[in-house]
Amino acid sequence: MEGKNNKTLVDQAADKIVQLILDRHIDIGERLPNEYELAQVLEISRNTLREAIRLLVSRNVLEVRQGSGTYVSDKRGVPEDPLGLTFMDHDLKLALDLLDIRLMLEPEICAIAAQKATEEQIRTLKDMAADMTELIQSGQDYFTLDIQMHQYLAECSGNSVLKNLIPIIVSSVRVDIAVTNDEHRHLTLQHHREIVDAIARHDPAGARYGMFSHLNVNRDYMARRVAEQN
Amino acid sequence: MEGKNNKTLVDQAADKIVQLILDRHIDIGERLPNEYELAQVLEISRNTLREAIRLLVSRNVLEVRQGSGTYVSDKRGVPEDPLGLTFMDHDLKLALDLLDIRLMLEPEICAIAAQKATEEQIRTLKDMAADMTELIQSGQDYFTLDIQMHQYLAECSGNSVLKNLIPIIVSSVRVDIAVTNDEHRHLTLQHHREIVDAIARHDPAGARYGMFSHLNVNRDYMARRVAEQN
Repeated sequence: MEGKNNKTLVDQAADKIVQLILDRHIDIGERLPNEYELAQVLEISRNTLREAIRLLVSRNVLEVRQGSGTYVSDKRGVPEDPLGLTFMDHDLKLALDLLDIRLMLEPEICAIAAQKATEEQIRTLKDMAADMTELIQSGQDYFTLDIQMHQYLAECSGNSVLKNLIPIIVSSVRVDIAVTNDEHRHLTLQHHREIVDAIARHDPAGARYGMFSHLNVNRDYMARRVAEQN
Repeated sequence: MEGKNNKTLVDQAADKIVQLILDRHIDIGERLPNEYELAQVLEISRNTLREAIRLLVSRNVLEVRQGSGTYVSDKRGVPEDPLGLTFMDHDLKLALDLLDIRLMLEPEICAIAAQKATEEQIRTLKDMAADMTELIQSGQDYFTLDIQMHQYLAECSGNSVLKNLIPIIVSSVRVDIAVTNDEHRHLTLQHHREIVDAIARHDPAGARYGMFSHLNVNRDYMARRVAEQN
């Protein structure tokens, strides 16, 4: 983490703003006090305040709406490139590395969800699986809903960090992998149903192995292509 | 990820700088061309360039050394708070959530390391374990070396993303947990040795279960305290 001894005035001001948000329980989407009040309360100059706000905007903590004010961002301070992928080669190896991490996390997430999911969460999962079936059967793009579903499973695990981590890892794969043939679509559908059914009957092993099967469809495809390249 | 349609001029300029770093293979720690050349090559104004550089500094992609120039940061673009922990309560629950994620990732990392570690990497791991033994036996603080060792195990796995992810998760626990009694120290020592020995004899199961045992010492301690609180 950042060295605490050489913080600039702007960094210190940014810390003060974050502390104020926490102290006053200003929620995501809520507005901060105006510039004049903020500068007074935090005992900083308007210039420093403006730079600190700009810094927190770049960190996805704040959001400035022109003519309206400064709000706590719904990006919850999760930055644009949390894993520093900008400087990695976006090739098949990176896609495979990300999938290997998903294979470590998501089967366990499903097992925990099978123990912890509430009846309401199970209903939401079933709705998502049904919507997914419709999209796939009518040949539409299901990528966004797919990501939402994996993210929702992480939420059902009750782990506060996984809720932020899974979207990062799932949506980081900017490598375009053409895993879209009919067999894969059919398996995706079947696996999603299996996972949701296992969670609904509170069967951790079933949910875990369902997710292993699901992710391994893509992993197998990618691992074959990497092997062909070498 | 960021919406691509509403990028500001500064965001676009930042993207151009990143692309130039990738295209010219400017390595970590190396200097960028001077302001005049950059503005010309990227076809942007000096003002926009300066703001873009400031943005990339806040994202830990660049580093400005006064009087010397702009360099590619050795923080590899990994931001200050990658998981958005700023807005979570730093309590025992968060520490336990982070540890549960470590229990999903690190045993598998050790299993892969047991298959992939080179002889040189194994020597480094043995050196680290020996240094750790010295620190613990002489009653010194071993926290920094402990983190380095877990990070090095991730490196031995050969997974490019884990190399960035593990330090984030391991060093994120700002919750102060007093797991320092003699029994824990003794177990830490023994487990580290077990893990390194298993990797040295290329025994994935041994390395995996060694790491489970190691992390569960802390997990067990925390889970008891959470249970007591409730």
